[in-house]
Amino acid sequence: MRQRPRDVRSPFVASFDTITFLTDYGLEDGFVAACHGVAAKITPSVRVIDITHLVQPGDVRRGAAVLAQTVPYLPPAVHLAVVDPGVGTARRGIAVQAGDGILVGPDNGLLSWAIATLGGATKAVQLTNGDLWLHPVSPTFHGRDIFMPVAAHLASGRDLTEAGEQIDLADLVTLPAPTSRVRDGEAEGEVMSVDRFGNVQLSIEASDVGQLGVGYGSPLVVRAGRRQLTVPFLETFAAVAPGEIVAFADSAGLISLAVNAGDAAQQLGLPPGAHVRLSVARPS
Amino acid sequence: MRQRPRDVRSPFVASFDTITFLTDYGLEDGFVAACHGVAAKITPSVRVIDITHLVQPGDVRRGAAVLAQTVPYLPPAVHLAVVDPGVGTARRGIAVQAGDGILVGPDNGLLSWAIATLGGATKAVQLTNGDLWLHPVSPTFHGRDIFMPVAAHLASGRDLTEAGEQIDLADLVTLPAPTSRVRDGEAEGEVMSVDRFGNVQLSIEASDVGQLGVGYGSPLVVRAGRRQLTVPFLETFAAVAPGEIVAFADSAGLISLAVNAGDAAQQLGLPPGAHVRLSVARPS
Amino acid sequence: MRQRPRDVRSPFVASFDTITFLTDYGLEDGFVAACHGVAAKITPSVRVIDITHLVQPGDVRRGAAVLAQTVPYLPPAVHLAVVDPGVGTARRGIAVQAGDGILVGPDNGLLSWAIATLGGATKAVQLTNGDLWLHPVSPTFHGRDIFMPVAAHLASGRDLTEAGEQIDLADLVTLPAPTSRVRDGEAEGEVMSVDRFGNVQLSIEASDVGQLGVGYGSPLVVRAGRRQLTVPFLETFAAVAPGEIVAFADSAGLISLAVNAGDAAQQLGLPPGAHVRLSVARPS
Repeated sequence: MRQRPRDVRSPFVASFDTITFLTDYGLEDGFVAACHGVAAKITPSVRVIDITHLVQPGDVRRGAAVLAQTVPYLPPAVHLAVVDPGVGTARRGIAVQAGDGILVGPDNGLLSWAIATLGGATKAVQLTNGDLWLHPVSPTFHGRDIFMPVAAHLASGRDLTEAGEQIDLADLVTLPAPTSRVRDGEAEGEVMSVDRFGNVQLSIEASDVGQLGVGYGSPLVVRAGRRQLTVPFLETFAAVAPGEIVAFADSAGLISLAVNAGDAAQQLGLPPGAHVRLSVARPS
Repeated sequence: MRQRPRDVRSPFVASFDTITFLTDYGLEDGFVAACHGVAAKITPSVRVIDITHLVQPGDVRRGAAVLAQTVPYLPPAVHLAVVDPGVGTARRGIAVQAGDGILVGPDNGLLSWAIATLGGATKAVQLTNGDLWLHPVSPTFHGRDIFMPVAAHLASGRDLTEAGEQIDLADLVTLPAPTSRVRDGEAEGEVMSVDRFGNVQLSIEASDVGQLGVGYGSPLVVRAGRRQLTVPFLETFAAVAPGEIVAFADSAGLISLAVNAGDAAQQLGLPPGAHVRLSVARPS
Repeated sequence: MRQRPRDVRSPFVASFDTITFLTDYGLEDGFVAACHGVAAKITPSVRVIDITHLVQPGDVRRGAAVLAQTVPYLPPAVHLAVVDPGVGTARRGIAVQAGDGILVGPDNGLLSWAIATLGGATKAVQLTNGDLWLHPVSPTFHGRDIFMPVAAHLASGRDLTEAGEQIDLADLVTLPAPTSRVRDGEAEGEVMSVDRFGNVQLSIEASDVGQLGVGYGSPLVVRAGRRQLTVPFLETFAAVAPGEIVAFADSAGLISLAVNAGDAAQQLGLPPGAHVRLSVARPS
């Protein structure tokens, strides 16, 4: 990887050849492209990796989950994320150093799970230096006029502290972690997300299910509301016949429920946020 | 903006490291990728910035609006746009020099609003030089076989006039501007577009509303057909409570109607093209 | 002493500056971006051209068709395709040298039509060298953990045989070609795909229709099930009035049915797989 040697003046000065980009802007308008253009004007050689722009409008929690689950596989970068239902109000814009990257976005919790995944914040600033912005600033499109310009300047090697005043790490807005606990022989959690395949991702770590003594091949009891069903816990959804339900450890290390060649979310009626309990099937 | 010095041999000879790309091809087929591939073969180091490929099939007006609103934020580039319901018929292909870029596409008005935004055309050619095309030319896919090859050759530094015969700027097809006028204390316009958030963008400039004496905080009367409602004119949709309607100056400098955390287009029943009048609310 | 150039050792050692990428992952999650990130970490200067990620989940046939129709327009590259309903089961992962490229993906037929388009396989390996993979390997996300890492290493110049053991070309899984034949004055085929415009692409080559003595301007009888209609065979859909049906040789060299400014698939009720026969209209 081409990485410029760290500047000796400060361990925090570095440039990045990549900006990653997640929003709820959709792909039907020119919003995403305007941001790409702004980046290309400021730092022409930067590469932008689009994470997704199809987060449901204003769904900060979903944006946070996708960002946190993707960031371990991204190169060192400035990670820009904008799901910002409060744009133009008092919520702060922030840039946060964590791990080998910098995260930029609104201070509404969107970045918080990715920051944790990257090992925690080591430095943060509030975006107050308007010299880095595009003027006039549209009150409704900070992605184009504030966040991307700042991300591009940081990628080009500007020090984090040039973006604004340093703020207390403890003051960063943090989304509550999804509920998840193991007790009384049950792992409890909620539906984190539903992917394109209809797979239902739970907030329960595969290791938590291991604590219950469940291994591949074990039958697992799934309880959601008044419903209860027993499904096999297997390595992959493709291990069951088409149409059958299966639990597996997904690619993010979380327990997911799938219907092979089908749509588990639809079949099980489990939307994001639904409460689910897992336990070992016992002989009756 | 870091802009490469123009080549001294001719004010018109320049190369571009970016092609921007807007179509109605959709993302489900390989059409867009085939065009990317064609560009990469002709000028391997070029970067393609996709504006959008989700213009509704054949909706030239929508394509023109997205292109014109995005182009100010794009770097100097060859801007390729293909929404071309007349592909394979007598309509011309054109390349037009405007501002610091070149626009390439069908001569059906698609490029006209962006040309105006860039300061007007300074030179134009009809695409008649088949040496730059990919043969055999498919009668239904000029994007792949004519427009992108020409765009890539122009990006690589070929002179505009190598693409074909120069044509009279007055002959370029121009879309009629969206209706918009201020009279009798009313600003009249139409719905330009509806974005992913359901925000309804009107063809009324924020400055026109200013002429009416409307400032942030003023109540604004919105009339559409027989309906009439009074909404606050504020800096951003996030300034009202969720579910409430607001008018604001959007990121393109136009008046938009939004429902905070809701879908204004759906709630107000205002599709693209609908006629809308705005005026200052008067004490009754 | 002059060193022998590297490629004298083996005609198969080459590096690629492009990876092309087709999946059924969708664009709503971070799956595609995770793969982009993995490639950027392994070979930072590589460019990724996304073909499409909107293949219907598990639709290997559709993925194969899009890949094969797009690949002639792509630069020399490692072509990565993952539509993999059998992920995590016994199906093999493969890398196949064909034409001026290398194809990587599951050995389920997905690559087979593109291999044929590129002139046939000249060498193939089963992906057995775990040194090139990302560990731990998720049983359900081989695109991220096996296929993309292998593709990136091959793009960076690793020899094909470093990815695994060479396998017999005759053992590669091949999708049956779409049915298509000419007999008794009829060309028979099936609906290959329906594009965004509702155009119905048949598995009948334009040259097959030529065999029937049909030329541009000829009326063509289309039979599907009990239905029969006569449509003009013209150079492009734009040659008929809006709302009218037309047959034309599409950009892939196949016969397509279109409704100008309309949706032929919907109007004709012809889904992928439907059987269709074409013949010359005869005077009754």
